[in-house]
Amino acid sequence: MPGPLISFTTDFGARDPSAAICRGVALGICPDARLLDISHEVEKYAVRDAALLLWCALPYLPVGVHVAVVDPGVGTERAPIALRLSRGDHLVGPDNGLLLPAAERLGGPTAVHRLDAPEFRLPSVSASFHGRDIFTPAGAHLANGVPLEAFGPQLDPATLVPLGWPVASVGPGALEAEAIYVDTFGNVKLGAEPRDLRGAFGAELAFGTELRCLVAVEGRTGRGIAGVRWVETFGRVGRGEPLLYEDSYGRLCLAVREGSFGERYSVGVGTAVRLMRG
Amino acid sequence: MPGPLISFTTDFGARDPSAAICRGVALGICPDARLLDISHEVEKYAVRDAALLLWCALPYLPVGVHVAVVDPGVGTERAPIALRLSRGDHLVGPDNGLLLPAAERLGGPTAVHRLDAPEFRLPSVSASFHGRDIFTPAGAHLANGVPLEAFGPQLDPATLVPLGWPVASVGPGALEAEAIYVDTFGNVKLGAEPRDLRGAFGAELAFGTELRCLVAVEGRTGRGIAGVRWVETFGRVGRGEPLLYEDSYGRLCLAVREGSFGERYSVGVGTAVRLMRG
Amino acid sequence: MPGPLISFTTDFGARDPSAAICRGVALGICPDARLLDISHEVEKYAVRDAALLLWCALPYLPVGVHVAVVDPGVGTERAPIALRLSRGDHLVGPDNGLLLPAAERLGGPTAVHRLDAPEFRLPSVSASFHGRDIFTPAGAHLANGVPLEAFGPQLDPATLVPLGWPVASVGPGALEAEAIYVDTFGNVKLGAEPRDLRGAFGAELAFGTELRCLVAVEGRTGRGIAGVRWVETFGRVGRGEPLLYEDSYGRLCLAVREGSFGERYSVGVGTAVRLMRG
Repeated sequence: MPGPLISFTTDFGARDPSAAICRGVALGICPDARLLDISHEVEKYAVRDAALLLWCALPYLPVGVHVAVVDPGVGTERAPIALRLSRGDHLVGPDNGLLLPAAERLGGPTAVHRLDAPEFRLPSVSASFHGRDIFTPAGAHLANGVPLEAFGPQLDPATLVPLGWPVASVGPGALEAEAIYVDTFGNVKLGAEPRDLRGAFGAELAFGTELRCLVAVEGRTGRGIAGVRWVETFGRVGRGEPLLYEDSYGRLCLAVREGSFGERYSVGVGTAVRLMRG
Repeated sequence: MPGPLISFTTDFGARDPSAAICRGVALGICPDARLLDISHEVEKYAVRDAALLLWCALPYLPVGVHVAVVDPGVGTERAPIALRLSRGDHLVGPDNGLLLPAAERLGGPTAVHRLDAPEFRLPSVSASFHGRDIFTPAGAHLANGVPLEAFGPQLDPATLVPLGWPVASVGPGALEAEAIYVDTFGNVKLGAEPRDLRGAFGAELAFGTELRCLVAVEGRTGRGIAGVRWVETFGRVGRGEPLLYEDSYGRLCLAVREGSFGERYSVGVGTAVRLMRG
Repeated sequence: MPGPLISFTTDFGARDPSAAICRGVALGICPDARLLDISHEVEKYAVRDAALLLWCALPYLPVGVHVAVVDPGVGTERAPIALRLSRGDHLVGPDNGLLLPAAERLGGPTAVHRLDAPEFRLPSVSASFHGRDIFTPAGAHLANGVPLEAFGPQLDPATLVPLGWPVASVGPGALEAEAIYVDTFGNVKLGAEPRDLRGAFGAELAFGTELRCLVAVEGRTGRGIAGVRWVETFGRVGRGEPLLYEDSYGRLCLAVREGSFGERYSVGVGTAVRLMRG
């Protein structure tokens, strides 16, 4: 009978000891936990990036406890919380929006509680490392079977700090969206889905169609990229050519085959992108 | 009784969620697996680098299932395969050469099968993330004891896509080889072994001998590096001095003590190197 | 009953296979070990950085075996050693100071032995990878319950190579200290503690007080940074403003809220810092 799963998603960085300390604290409280690092290399303070990682990963992970700490507000009034999902997972982290997209993707939280009970924190709580002192201990106690209700007062999910990605703007013949994540390959995930593409270009948009892409430069629509082909996957274009595809999570994504779209065209998170027929 | 071992070698990058998703998929199918990441920081698309990592690591790992995904051809016709080794391991990945050097080092594959059976893939297979949808599920089912024969048709090992490192050229008094990997210390592994050195300089080449190294610049033999001493290990030269040694895997390797040979002399994978007596 | 814990702290780098090979060797000898990576991204050869990581982490980790390898002296006469702590831990690594601060924080070593016994090394010991061939096997055998006395002759702890961080210099109205670590957020840990601050400025130094910070440039006291507020935590200053706080391990630390003190003010390990009243 394998132990409970505890995952971690943080911006702590692989060089520093913080992530390992959280793992150690978890094993101290729940010695048979199976630990799974989703990422400790989230860009510093990038709550939305971490939310996307959780949103991508959770449907593929076993039911478990998921501790997420990207927490620019540590030491301020933001609440430490845990959510329960109908699948049986618990999500633990700061109330800054980080947990919500993944929770909603799995049906939304069935209960939310504040993490106030001192018996489920480390004996001494620092002002700057709640991942170690509050969130990981809570996650490990939840993994041990402590009921969520024991941690503190219940909160109304509607009162949680929201987080959302920018919504695509769909017009006839044009789709405007924002880059919401640039992965380590340089593939650029857009805040748009294939249905937005159909909304802009009609259901008939055939694989292989060439699109033109306008990328904002310093806030203004600037650089044009011609010959961005809408294809099923990388192998449909030549090496070094740009493409638009549906990524493996159902999002529209710009890429260069065996290259980096983000680097070549200076596209980062927040860059506005406009897609038109070539 | 510890669970089966599943290792991962990919170019997915530690920041993105892809590696964690593979771990999660593996634990979903084989909950008591012991997971071991060989590396997720292989240079993007560098099939040969990943092959070298596997070649280095596998003899030191317990018998297990080894999933390797550096897959520039995802979404093209390249086959998904798994190999069985006589030691009892299974190697799982794309048929692009990645698995072969490690397999050959451990005696060569005793059987090779295509991974076609839909019951051992995720229910929905994406066009761009076969690590998650095909390779990891196959690895986890193999770890569960599903026989290799159940995954698809047998392939003749001789028909697999080959991968090799460039062979050293040994002349009287000169050894020419290519840099095949530059590690994170800046040590430069050559496509050559100590016996090549003996071939070029005779068995009498004593430890402590100074060699001269010519490094190609833009395809032409260019920069000369004097005073590269052939020694047993780093401690035999002064700090900051260059050396040639047999690395801990039996390859010739250029280094600078407590420095980076690769950076100082602008040597990267593929750079041609010529060694002569000083 | 969960297996024994083995942690790893090295400068091997996440891209190379060395860390995974150590994990594999450990599992080969102690198959039910629970492995915990503290960090493999310690700056190359930075023995003091690794010592700090261990010092930070060990109090939060379960009792176990802690293998640490930052080893610029590999292949020289430096001894391979293991220490036992009263808590029950074993610390394994080179005798270069790396293990001592963590050991002393947990009460000091109760016994120290050389790792000489060939039966607890890999059959073939390379000249350049003692992490794989000596330290990890020793750690895994210790995890299996082999007594420390079986590994080799006992050493007097007083004869071990020392390692210390520079001590703060406390004068009336001024505190001088050295940067001893810059974390991945750019927070700068000083070789000083809150009691040094009280020594320099008196017990009355109230939270919120503005200090002035002089940072050495090229060995000379140079750049001045005004408005560094002594606060409990980040949230007490505005975004982008500098602060001095007690970090979650009890050290004085310079930071910029949601920014990098290290980058903005070019402060790295070894930089001398002088704190005065604003």
